[in-house]
Amino acid sequence: MVAVAILAAGRGTRMKSDLPKVLHRLGGKSLVEWVLGSLSEIETARRLVIVGYRGELITQALTNLEDDAAPNIEFVEQTVQLGTGHAAQQLLTHLKGFQGDLLILNGDVPLLRPQTLKRLLETHREHHNAATILTAQLPNPKGYGRVFCDSQNRLQQIVEDRDCTPAQKQNRRINAGVYCFRWADLAEALPKLTADNDQREYYLTDTVNFLNPVMAVDVEDYQEILGINDRKQLAAAYDILQTRIKDHWMAAGVTLIDPSSITIDDTVGLEADVVIEPQTHLRGKTTIQAGSRIGPSSLIEHSQIGQQVTVMYSVVTDSTVAAGTRIGPYAHLRGHVETGSGCRIGNFVELKNTKLGDRTNVAHLSYLGDTTAGNQVNVGAGTITANYDGVKKHRTQIGDRTKTGSNSVLVAPITIGEGVNIAAGSTVTEDVPDDCLVIARARQVIKPGWKLKAKPEA
Amino acid sequence: MVAVAILAAGRGTRMKSDLPKVLHRLGGKSLVEWVLGSLSEIETARRLVIVGYRGELITQALTNLEDDAAPNIEFVEQTVQLGTGHAAQQLLTHLKGFQGDLLILNGDVPLLRPQTLKRLLETHREHHNAATILTAQLPNPKGYGRVFCDSQNRLQQIVEDRDCTPAQKQNRRINAGVYCFRWADLAEALPKLTADNDQREYYLTDTVNFLNPVMAVDVEDYQEILGINDRKQLAAAYDILQTRIKDHWMAAGVTLIDPSSITIDDTVGLEADVVIEPQTHLRGKTTIQAGSRIGPSSLIEHSQIGQQVTVMYSVVTDSTVAAGTRIGPYAHLRGHVETGSGCRIGNFVELKNTKLGDRTNVAHLSYLGDTTAGNQVNVGAGTITANYDGVKKHRTQIGDRTKTGSNSVLVAPITIGEGVNIAAGSTVTEDVPDDCLVIARARQVIKPGWKLKAKPEA
Amino acid sequence: MVAVAILAAGRGTRMKSDLPKVLHRLGGKSLVEWVLGSLSEIETARRLVIVGYRGELITQALTNLEDDAAPNIEFVEQTVQLGTGHAAQQLLTHLKGFQGDLLILNGDVPLLRPQTLKRLLETHREHHNAATILTAQLPNPKGYGRVFCDSQNRLQQIVEDRDCTPAQKQNRRINAGVYCFRWADLAEALPKLTADNDQREYYLTDTVNFLNPVMAVDVEDYQEILGINDRKQLAAAYDILQTRIKDHWMAAGVTLIDPSSITIDDTVGLEADVVIEPQTHLRGKTTIQAGSRIGPSSLIEHSQIGQQVTVMYSVVTDSTVAAGTRIGPYAHLRGHVETGSGCRIGNFVELKNTKLGDRTNVAHLSYLGDTTAGNQVNVGAGTITANYDGVKKHRTQIGDRTKTGSNSVLVAPITIGEGVNIAAGSTVTEDVPDDCLVIARARQVIKPGWKLKAKPEA
Repeated sequence: MVAVAILAAGRGTRMKSDLPKVLHRLGGKSLVEWVLGSLSEIETARRLVIVGYRGELITQALTNLEDDAAPNIEFVEQTVQLGTGHAAQQLLTHLKGFQGDLLILNGDVPLLRPQTLKRLLETHREHHNAATILTAQLPNPKGYGRVFCDSQNRLQQIVEDRDCTPAQKQNRRINAGVYCFRWADLAEALPKLTADNDQREYYLTDTVNFLNPVMAVDVEDYQEILGINDRKQLAAAYDILQTRIKDHWMAAGVTLIDPSSITIDDTVGLEADVVIEPQTHLRGKTTIQAGSRIGPSSLIEHSQIGQQVTVMYSVVTDSTVAAGTRIGPYAHLRGHVETGSGCRIGNFVELKNTKLGDRTNVAHLSYLGDTTAGNQVNVGAGTITANYDGVKKHRTQIGDRTKTGSNSVLVAPITIGEGVNIAAGSTVTEDVPDDCLVIARARQVIKPGWKLKAKPEA
Repeated sequence: MVAVAILAAGRGTRMKSDLPKVLHRLGGKSLVEWVLGSLSEIETARRLVIVGYRGELITQALTNLEDDAAPNIEFVEQTVQLGTGHAAQQLLTHLKGFQGDLLILNGDVPLLRPQTLKRLLETHREHHNAATILTAQLPNPKGYGRVFCDSQNRLQQIVEDRDCTPAQKQNRRINAGVYCFRWADLAEALPKLTADNDQREYYLTDTVNFLNPVMAVDVEDYQEILGINDRKQLAAAYDILQTRIKDHWMAAGVTLIDPSSITIDDTVGLEADVVIEPQTHLRGKTTIQAGSRIGPSSLIEHSQIGQQVTVMYSVVTDSTVAAGTRIGPYAHLRGHVETGSGCRIGNFVELKNTKLGDRTNVAHLSYLGDTTAGNQVNVGAGTITANYDGVKKHRTQIGDRTKTGSNSVLVAPITIGEGVNIAAGSTVTEDVPDDCLVIARARQVIKPGWKLKAKPEA
Repeated sequence: MVAVAILAAGRGTRMKSDLPKVLHRLGGKSLVEWVLGSLSEIETARRLVIVGYRGELITQALTNLEDDAAPNIEFVEQTVQLGTGHAAQQLLTHLKGFQGDLLILNGDVPLLRPQTLKRLLETHREHHNAATILTAQLPNPKGYGRVFCDSQNRLQQIVEDRDCTPAQKQNRRINAGVYCFRWADLAEALPKLTADNDQREYYLTDTVNFLNPVMAVDVEDYQEILGINDRKQLAAAYDILQTRIKDHWMAAGVTLIDPSSITIDDTVGLEADVVIEPQTHLRGKTTIQAGSRIGPSSLIEHSQIGQQVTVMYSVVTDSTVAAGTRIGPYAHLRGHVETGSGCRIGNFVELKNTKLGDRTNVAHLSYLGDTTAGNQVNVGAGTITANYDGVKKHRTQIGDRTKTGSNSVLVAPITIGEGVNIAAGSTVTEDVPDDCLVIARARQVIKPGWKLKAKPEA
């Protein structure tokens, strides 16, 4: 049985923020959500988050998550922050009588891979350790305490950087601050901690002096243990995360043109032979099927894109785009749009909460809101559905093969039949049956001899 | 006399693609087109491309190229892929009796410079070699076979990495897989190849054992020999190519602001004192004259941009823009637009197959399609040419100094004279002579005492 | 008393430009303006700029600056360019009788920090030096003359790279070309210079042979001394500058998502907890308050952004945006726009010289120019203010809680009262009192049995 405790009580002063550090976001998720996500390979009986600075914000954020991301989190309050050991001491009452192992993670170390924690736990159990600590081989370990083990990876000592001999400084193995404890043993050790050090803090690391056996497990990729203390480290972690995600998709057969300019959330799914152009951002629960080309400079969020779709210089959120549809440049789909296949959504077109049939075109300067249009509809340039009467929104229905003229307005609620032709410049306020021509405009009057008073601006 | 053979039969499994590897694109051209382009300094009597996996796609792609890029390509089928030597064996019947030299290139090595191949060929001829191989000095040659030569660059041996002594591993010279052979000699050597190795493949390299003299020529820039096996290498090659192109233009007097965010096809021509802003992409046969400033976040494709033009946050394709014209933000020119000098194309304006005179303004929210407008025309905000009647497209003509009102529609086919003033909100369906005022709208009716039923949404 | 002379006479041939080198821009300022800016920690009695190639352009550019940036600059002409020593000789008449110290800076070295020059001057004064030279420890000093000092930093000799012994080449300290002289001493030394060298130039460095004592001061960050000779170095300097600026803001509590894709002028002010999304550019005198999120792909120039504002895929220049307003995607604010708080400026909306009250919405496809709108106004999709009659611009006034219909036009000059409802498709030409409904459109006519002659394009 495994419990996990996440240290999330600190303010993170160097973030210079009103927000507690662990709520800062890395792509689509907060730091503490990433930490919770790193537990995906482990079955945890209990999950405790130790909160302090503005803990109510953390409680609220994690309580609002979907259930599967964060089931049954218990919040433990640490009213003053006297170090990692002190934080762990807060667990003594909450975990009283718990029989099993306790993983202790840091809320500001978001990049640990699930496999890393799984391996840590497996080693811990296999060797019946009292404690197992995660270590990393840093290219530049300067400033970090060094971890010394015997050939069996049994911990011998941890030496602070300033206390290292020159020979000891050659050791690049450092303590990652991630631990697995046999809880019963830790519960006995925690009360023995003292704050007898420069910082006057209780260090969780010191418990290893009271525990036996203690082993160390190296993380494979030292970048996983990066802790976030300031915005520059936040940017660095995002860069590491993005490289990880983009390398994954390139290996899976996705072409990224200038990958460094592209960002992809880890919740996105892509098929082989998708092409992503520069400066494109794929976010949330987005999927893109084979043969589609997205970008340059586009944002796709929480949307499903079919095969052979092109999107350029456009923003698509919360929408579904069927195969062969072409979008952009400068189009905006939002609020649950569904297009049929082979549609054309052109420049300066906004679709909101709108459903289009197959091979329907909205090519220029239009707004369709709360609209259902059929197949092979041609929405003329400048067409607008007036869906809002100042009080509430109404729907517009447009039948198959209907054609709206340039600068026409459809005043909702309204139903336009199939095969209708709406003349340019018409404001349509009443329903129109199938196969009609609708005109709602004034006749043209020409007044000769008119002269502009002055010449136009050069 | 020189023949060239390009190895293009492999699938490229690690690309994870339906497309044969050599058809993947690097900027505006496929990999195999880049390889063909690297022959520009050499007069080739015959060009053979050895195809296998989905060879019909390659045949089709290269046959569709313009003549000067790929004249008279012969396609040689390699039905099974048993190694580079086996590929070369397929040439035996095609080149029967050919008297001259044969260059063998890889279809997935796109970055070779024309001068490199020219130098390889010149060395080959000058020394009357039976074979001349291209080599490179890699910073990190681990995993590659090492090439050992005498002081005259005559090949002594090629040793696989795993067979190298520690001393031999210090040699950073590796085989680039690019060869020049005296064809008569190669034709004799090819039948002697065996597949007596781990991979059960016939290696072209092994022919050097039967040939004499064989020399090696170092490539100047080892990055030229990068082979593309997966999407990450494709991205790396694009990065190398872009650095090469951008360094060239910076040396020629072009300012690139944040060059890493800019991409420029090798088919683009720029004058000195052009400024390119971040996130801008210049593609195809585009030229930009002195003093113009393009970007941020713009795409110019197959277009000619005159002097002192500014384009920001816009997309311009297949168009010609005269001097002093200002475009954007958020404008879209496509389908053979020609602007006069000193025009102003503003935000949310689309021009398609349209010709503007000098000092004509289309400043806001307009669509002009299939339109010819004269000089000093002022196209009002929201003006639309209704060029499509549901069946076909018609043209709109607008005379000099004419002014269209806001939200006016010109229903094509239509001719508007010079000096005309079209009132705001008018839909114009009939031709208008010079110097007229046109009104086509209803009079305003005011109904007092009206109240919205509920207060507007906050 | 301190005088400063800036060497700005060279053409900068490798820039390949019509513009003198020092007028090329780095972010919002020219190189020579950056050099002037590096003097901000020093009180200078006189500022002399030595000009030559197209000097009139430099004179004009610096004369047009705001006073505080460049007070009382004197321009000194160097008609032929015979080296730095020759340039300094031009000062002899201008500074005749000047009692004090002279700083000599290069117009093409823009990244010196004010503190660096302050420290140079302080060292110079404290030690009563005749000359003090700025030096740097380069990681790769190859090609540069090396500076050798005693343990008191007193200059012993400067040895050209080609004259260095292998031991001397180990010295990475080089001459940065920035000097502080006691003017009286320099004035005596300058006439003694000879052009007895390969380049036939007079070198300012050679004056140290006639002066005593001479000391050297190391710059802390060697990147400060980068000189700009070509466009690639210009790009490199911009990168260094941007890293400096972005590191500053991250340390101050600003989140930059993908910082490498973001550019920020040094004139911009940001509060903590601002978030900048990728591909965003902040320019000129822009300030952004806490909690706002800007980008992706946005440009904010000379604008004041309040708290909790979001701007995405938009361009905002010369404007003020109040708290809680949401802008974009694809909006354009320019020409002194002021929004109230909680406004919504949506896609394809242009605001120019327009003032909005609180909680006013302009959500789609609109142009408001020269307009004043009240609180809680709802501007319908496609609404346009016709502010230009072909001769001049007029203002539009819209009262609180008024609602304009889709595709309506307000022909300025015009005043619309409070609580007015303008029907969709109306062109309003006359003033409207409070609480009225306005209609200006034709009634709808339905003609049944209409058939399109051919089927619409597939």
